[in-house]
Amino acid sequence: MVKRKMVYLFEEGSAEMRNLLGGKGSGLAEMTRLGLPVPPGFTITTSVCNSFYSLGGKFPPGLRRKVHEALRSVEEKMGRKFDSNEKPLLVSVRSGARVSMPGMMDTVLNLGLNDRTLGAIIGESGNPRWAYDTYRRFVQMYGNVVMGVEHDIFEDILREVKGQRGIRLDTELNEAELKDTVERYKRKIREVTGQEFPEKPEQQLWNAIGAVFTSWNNRRAITYRKLNGIPEDWGTAVTVQAMVFGNMGDDCATGVAFTRNPSTGENVFYGEFLPNAQGEDVVAGIRTPQPINRVAGRDGESLEERMPGTHAELLEIKRTLESHYKDVQDLEFTIQNGKLYLLQTRSGKRTAAAAVRIAVDMVNEGLVTREEGILSVNPSTLEQLLHPVFDESSERTEVGRGLPASPGAATGMVVFDAESAVERAEAGEKVVLVRNETSAEDIHGMAAAQAIVTATGGMTSHAAVVARGMGKTCVAGCSDIVIDHASRTFTGKGGLSVREGDFISVDGTEGVVYLGRIQTRQAQITSYFRTFLDWADGLKRLGVRANADLPADARVAREFGATGIGLVRTEHMFFGADRLPHMRRMILAEGEEERRRALDSLLPFQRQDFTGLMREMSGYPVTIRLLDPPLHEFLPKGEEEIRALADDMGIDPERVRSRTEALRELNPMLGHRGCRLAVTYPEIYEMQCRAIFEAACDLRKEGVADPVPEVMIPLIAGREEFDLLRKDVDRIASEVFTERGTEVHYLVGTMIELPRAALLAGDIAKSAQFFSFGTNDLTQTTLGISRDDAGRFLPEYVGKSLLEYDPFQTIDVEGVGQLVRIGIQKGRHVNPGLETGICGEHGGDPKSVEFFHTAGLDYVSCSPYRVPVARLAAAQAAVRGKAKKSGKDQD
Amino acid sequence: MVKRKMVYLFEEGSAEMRNLLGGKGSGLAEMTRLGLPVPPGFTITTSVCNSFYSLGGKFPPGLRRKVHEALRSVEEKMGRKFDSNEKPLLVSVRSGARVSMPGMMDTVLNLGLNDRTLGAIIGESGNPRWAYDTYRRFVQMYGNVVMGVEHDIFEDILREVKGQRGIRLDTELNEAELKDTVERYKRKIREVTGQEFPEKPEQQLWNAIGAVFTSWNNRRAITYRKLNGIPEDWGTAVTVQAMVFGNMGDDCATGVAFTRNPSTGENVFYGEFLPNAQGEDVVAGIRTPQPINRVAGRDGESLEERMPGTHAELLEIKRTLESHYKDVQDLEFTIQNGKLYLLQTRSGKRTAAAAVRIAVDMVNEGLVTREEGILSVNPSTLEQLLHPVFDESSERTEVGRGLPASPGAATGMVVFDAESAVERAEAGEKVVLVRNETSAEDIHGMAAAQAIVTATGGMTSHAAVVARGMGKTCVAGCSDIVIDHASRTFTGKGGLSVREGDFISVDGTEGVVYLGRIQTRQAQITSYFRTFLDWADGLKRLGVRANADLPADARVAREFGATGIGLVRTEHMFFGADRLPHMRRMILAEGEEERRRALDSLLPFQRQDFTGLMREMSGYPVTIRLLDPPLHEFLPKGEEEIRALADDMGIDPERVRSRTEALRELNPMLGHRGCRLAVTYPEIYEMQCRAIFEAACDLRKEGVADPVPEVMIPLIAGREEFDLLRKDVDRIASEVFTERGTEVHYLVGTMIELPRAALLAGDIAKSAQFFSFGTNDLTQTTLGISRDDAGRFLPEYVGKSLLEYDPFQTIDVEGVGQLVRIGIQKGRHVNPGLETGICGEHGGDPKSVEFFHTAGLDYVSCSPYRVPVARLAAAQAAVRGKAKKSGKDQD
Repeated sequence: MVKRKMVYLFEEGSAEMRNLLGGKGSGLAEMTRLGLPVPPGFTITTSVCNSFYSLGGKFPPGLRRKVHEALRSVEEKMGRKFDSNEKPLLVSVRSGARVSMPGMMDTVLNLGLNDRTLGAIIGESGNPRWAYDTYRRFVQMYGNVVMGVEHDIFEDILREVKGQRGIRLDTELNEAELKDTVERYKRKIREVTGQEFPEKPEQQLWNAIGAVFTSWNNRRAITYRKLNGIPEDWGTAVTVQAMVFGNMGDDCATGVAFTRNPSTGENVFYGEFLPNAQGEDVVAGIRTPQPINRVAGRDGESLEERMPGTHAELLEIKRTLESHYKDVQDLEFTIQNGKLYLLQTRSGKRTAAAAVRIAVDMVNEGLVTREEGILSVNPSTLEQLLHPVFDESSERTEVGRGLPASPGAATGMVVFDAESAVERAEAGEKVVLVRNETSAEDIHGMAAAQAIVTATGGMTSHAAVVARGMGKTCVAGCSDIVIDHASRTFTGKGGLSVREGDFISVDGTEGVVYLGRIQTRQAQITSYFRTFLDWADGLKRLGVRANADLPADARVAREFGATGIGLVRTEHMFFGADRLPHMRRMILAEGEEERRRALDSLLPFQRQDFTGLMREMSGYPVTIRLLDPPLHEFLPKGEEEIRALADDMGIDPERVRSRTEALRELNPMLGHRGCRLAVTYPEIYEMQCRAIFEAACDLRKEGVADPVPEVMIPLIAGREEFDLLRKDVDRIASEVFTERGTEVHYLVGTMIELPRAALLAGDIAKSAQFFSFGTNDLTQTTLGISRDDAGRFLPEYVGKSLLEYDPFQTIDVEGVGQLVRIGIQKGRHVNPGLETGICGEHGGDPKSVEFFHTAGLDYVSCSPYRVPVARLAAAQAAVRGKAKKSGKDQD
Repeated sequence: MVKRKMVYLFEEGSAEMRNLLGGKGSGLAEMTRLGLPVPPGFTITTSVCNSFYSLGGKFPPGLRRKVHEALRSVEEKMGRKFDSNEKPLLVSVRSGARVSMPGMMDTVLNLGLNDRTLGAIIGESGNPRWAYDTYRRFVQMYGNVVMGVEHDIFEDILREVKGQRGIRLDTELNEAELKDTVERYKRKIREVTGQEFPEKPEQQLWNAIGAVFTSWNNRRAITYRKLNGIPEDWGTAVTVQAMVFGNMGDDCATGVAFTRNPSTGENVFYGEFLPNAQGEDVVAGIRTPQPINRVAGRDGESLEERMPGTHAELLEIKRTLESHYKDVQDLEFTIQNGKLYLLQTRSGKRTAAAAVRIAVDMVNEGLVTREEGILSVNPSTLEQLLHPVFDESSERTEVGRGLPASPGAATGMVVFDAESAVERAEAGEKVVLVRNETSAEDIHGMAAAQAIVTATGGMTSHAAVVARGMGKTCVAGCSDIVIDHASRTFTGKGGLSVREGDFISVDGTEGVVYLGRIQTRQAQITSYFRTFLDWADGLKRLGVRANADLPADARVAREFGATGIGLVRTEHMFFGADRLPHMRRMILAEGEEERRRALDSLLPFQRQDFTGLMREMSGYPVTIRLLDPPLHEFLPKGEEEIRALADDMGIDPERVRSRTEALRELNPMLGHRGCRLAVTYPEIYEMQCRAIFEAACDLRKEGVADPVPEVMIPLIAGREEFDLLRKDVDRIASEVFTERGTEVHYLVGTMIELPRAALLAGDIAKSAQFFSFGTNDLTQTTLGISRDDAGRFLPEYVGKSLLEYDPFQTIDVEGVGQLVRIGIQKGRHVNPGLETGICGEHGGDPKSVEFFHTAGLDYVSCSPYRVPVARLAAAQAAVRGKAKKSGKDQD
């Protein structure tokens, strides 16, 4: 084994060595290599951290020598000496993991001071106040971080001293008072820890390095790692760097800056600084920082005005860094006696809107290629841009917190059932539907509502899926809420009681429900957004369709760039008040003839639905799934509703009751549904096919739209089933074509949503013209997990890393993905022209889209609001795929 | 294309040409080749039948010439001539398909007679009465079969004639009356059809051949083919054979015989004959046939006494045929003027008991090899031999018919719930539990009952599976029965009403429920049966274990030859009256501590269960599945029960109610069950493992039994899950070993019952020591069919040939089987020592067992009563596999 270096001088490192040197260390190394003004220093690697732990908290042999060598090199560059009575070198000791873990680990500044070196810097600088201020900061920080004395204890002493003088700001303390504070600090440390504050800088340094390593395993760091899935064995690096001082006087300052506006993306230098301060003061928020650029109407002198030379230097550095990193940078800097030093650079966090604008600008500026621009934006964030958001300034009272099931922000009156939702909406009110969970029966109520809140259910519960499809805000699984239907109220967090008719506000992006009305503002689709997604389309291979059940949804989908509908759920069309009675008559029919009569009444509605959809999607395919859910979903549940229905229909309630009972299923997910309905009652699909082909022929004859219907048969388990049903589809098509005197091109295909269908895809593809992988159901059957019931254990599974992701959000590549690959491969093998797509919720999840690209699908289909997400994810997958491929080609 | 022969003389055919010549034709050909006395004839092939249909009911060109040539050959052999005024040849024209379709198609005897040839045979035989009798038979049969005049019309005329004479038997009719009958027949035919009866034998022959072909597609033949899965394109052959006559006088006879007793298997010639008769008379049942062998106490002179020479000839023929066919034969023969002719031979149908005895005898006689003997018995029939049966002579009134879910026969008082079953049983009554469907809660009631009847549910419903496991008779899905719980009655077929406490009798072998008490008789295991299965064990490769939950079941399993338990369902142990309260306390516990206390109370019970099982199975593995079903199965359902439980436990009913509500699942099959319970509540499996290892250590220390526990973790979806839980199993084991001061060898493995587990078997096998394929659940998830709900559409699927078999009875080789193969292959690849088995219901299904043998599993596990079935099926699979392999090797 090659013995790896334990310590790297900045000039020996680089950005590529992030895993070894941490984010901070590698950034400083890279800037050093770029010739930027970085105070000299070195980094102890993350491997040393791991050795430190495996040795039970001891430094590995040889480390001390290496650190001393590095320190000698820093001393040389600075012309100063650590622990010297003349021009002593002070250093900072900072943590730095592979990824940023803001505020989770420890840092010690101004290390190397003691009563002796203090005298030296006083003599050297002629600035005893600064020297004592620095000493005070060091003792406080070291006492806290290394010696474990609580921060508040030091703050109490500081407050005491200021109180005696009647002053408010630390900067108002004079030399004597600071000196006094340091002494009080040291006494207190002795009192609390029973130990003296170490005077030897050597001891200070090693204790500080040990403390930083130890802070990798403090409680908050462990929690943060768990939450963010950061492995324990990554470890932290330790960077030791010569101190520079922003607190030596008025020609000094410290600041942070973004190379572009992280909120809007505008290409202007953006940041704040504090004159005569050290970095921690900016964070502490005691003094108000001043802007870096001159800003009209903003208080405080800008850096541009105060130190124009340094400002110009910063702008030059911005250019250097952006063209080097090809990304917006987030900088920390210090100005010591007019000289600029950079203390940190990292990729700048930004809003979705900023990310898009920055990408477009940087491409246009020639800084990055289109491919790089496309890769720079996280697809998941795009959805934020399409939904309204709450006005940031509004006051809020949280009444419950759940899952951010469908993004957006909306306000309305609470209603507890679908009927009330429709009634109040028709009366012009805005309503929020609050339910324990929703089912297909609630669709019309959901459509009428501004937002949906459910007390149970997960990210792929009925409420969540349908809400996303409709682009409605939804918070699901809001377990803070307990509904009392009797009194028509719910109780929320802290016992807050909300009655029907009261207003609540729902933030589906964050998953929070608030009391009362909060102002929202509408999102705007910018030209940056359009340009960006046009570029994405130019790069992607995957097609992106939308799941849409209504013409309005189809229109939104087209606006967001969908090139077809990948899934029309026809059952959603049967819940309208004008349709449900016919549907129920059909289900309660005694014999085929009565059933056919009821279906005849449904035909015109279905035809109208399909006409609307195909008109909106003119020229693009519309994939229509024939009836899928079990029939009992359409029947009333309670005794009261049963009686009402029987009255309406003029039949014996017993008939409704016994039919409902006969249709009851223990596991409806695995029951009499999908194409199984059509095997038993072929007339249902016949009616739907008739509606599809009549609609298509009528549009064709009108000549205003170009209908491209794709008939999709759900829940196929084998070819025999498909052949039986396809025969009926083709027969109806040819009947309608004859009747209407015109023809349309159509496809007949199937969903692959059962493991057996994927395993037998080679056989099914002999007859099917397309496959649409129904990954929702395929996930349920492959993993044996009901998504409606998964909430009880799935979070624990993800929490305990038994599953990497919630498999209903991100496709389970190993299991479900394996079946998708098998299905594609076997299907294409016998039928090279087979069209393949996916219409589960995964179609809008970027990680899943990457998999679908790799697996070779033709298209994904997702909720209209996720179409832009999918377009971008598809483009990124293509770019990454090409990079990987060309990487391989070079091997 | 080689033009195939259309017509085969008997001497040109053979037994191997069954597909072309039909069963009858190939049998006659084979006997001819053996030199047995067969009247000459020829067979028109099944291909000609297909040509006949494809030509729209016309004979293919060239057929007439071929038939004439063949007829000439028959004429020569007989020294007679068709359509001749001197020694005319009469023939029979018979149908004959590849497989026997008894009575489905048509036959014409005595063809070639007309007024002219009649005169010739009168002159030749000097027996005008015989001649007219033969003519009468011919006209009646031809008129019916070829000309379509109803049978009853002829019977009416015959009755009329007899009535005029005041006689009862056809044999009493004299020459004149028979002649009169023939004339009346002809007149009637003319009247009904408007056509003359054809006088030309040539025309008679071709019409008869056409009629036989046509009868392949008569309604009853089509129905029979559908029911028995016989393809339409097999077609029927037509055999034309010279007539011989059993009705020429007292030295003539006709009869049927089995070469051994088809009911007991005893090696005695067995059959009946009628003197002076034609074959149809035996079937018509007007005269009582006489025995062939001398039988003490039986009426009628035996053939042995009447014609000792012919009898001896028949015995010789039996030896020839049995040693040639290596099977029991079912013969038809005719004796004409003392000379014996054989008209048919085929494999003899027999009871299961006879099949076993015949196989053993034939092996011992050296007639067949052990392998051939083993292949000669249908494994499915063996179960009949283990269960009691109803006395055949008892009178019966059917009250309902359902699925033969668990074989046997039992009688008892009707009860409608488990509690009543237990109460009455404890009072010494025999009871039959009648439910709409059963669930885990009913187990104690099922155990107390003689038989179980359910109104809904299929062959693999809870009731069916559990009943088979317990060896209890069960009729499931008996939809004739409608239970009214309020009045504690059920209504059956024809409105029969049965009250609680009334007696019913249940035939689980046939799937019928009868009113009242019917006597049963116990089945006896014969020495033939034991010998036969010992031979099977010597040939099979697959191990056979049993699914057993109680020591008594384990004992039965051992008696039937199980070499281990492949599945202990531990949940069944929690329903006893002494256990359920603790189980419920565990489920309702608030927090881990309370849960652990409740589990501590369950521990002694579990330990006792496992001790009993491992003691019975000493030296053989006992595979114990840790808790599998969702917890709500253990909680009360109705409000009343909830209150009672809350009272018992001294807690608020609301706590029970809300916990029940919280545990409710939409799809419990895909819910919080199996190892998912242990991920959430590890203490449950910990208790169970402790019970297993404590029991094993105690037995080891006692020194009387050799415990071999295999701990099986259910519903694993991935390796991470398994690793997490296995760690606990191993920890508990080592704790117990330390405490008890002894160790036992044990395995930890998993069920493969989710598609994902099969797909990721390679990963899971890195940690698991055995796989047990849970093909029940694997079928549910792979096909997406809930077996509890499948009754609504599965029968239609099988009926429409969308599925070949009910996949819960016979494994779906293409889908589920593919996953089993993938699982075995991937598992063995990384872990060559992996033990693999299957513990679903398929373990007792012969077709499935054959698949499991081929797929390479180590063992199957099934209900104790199916163990012999599985042993035989496994042996047959091995024998067939070897045959196939050696066949291949020769290629």
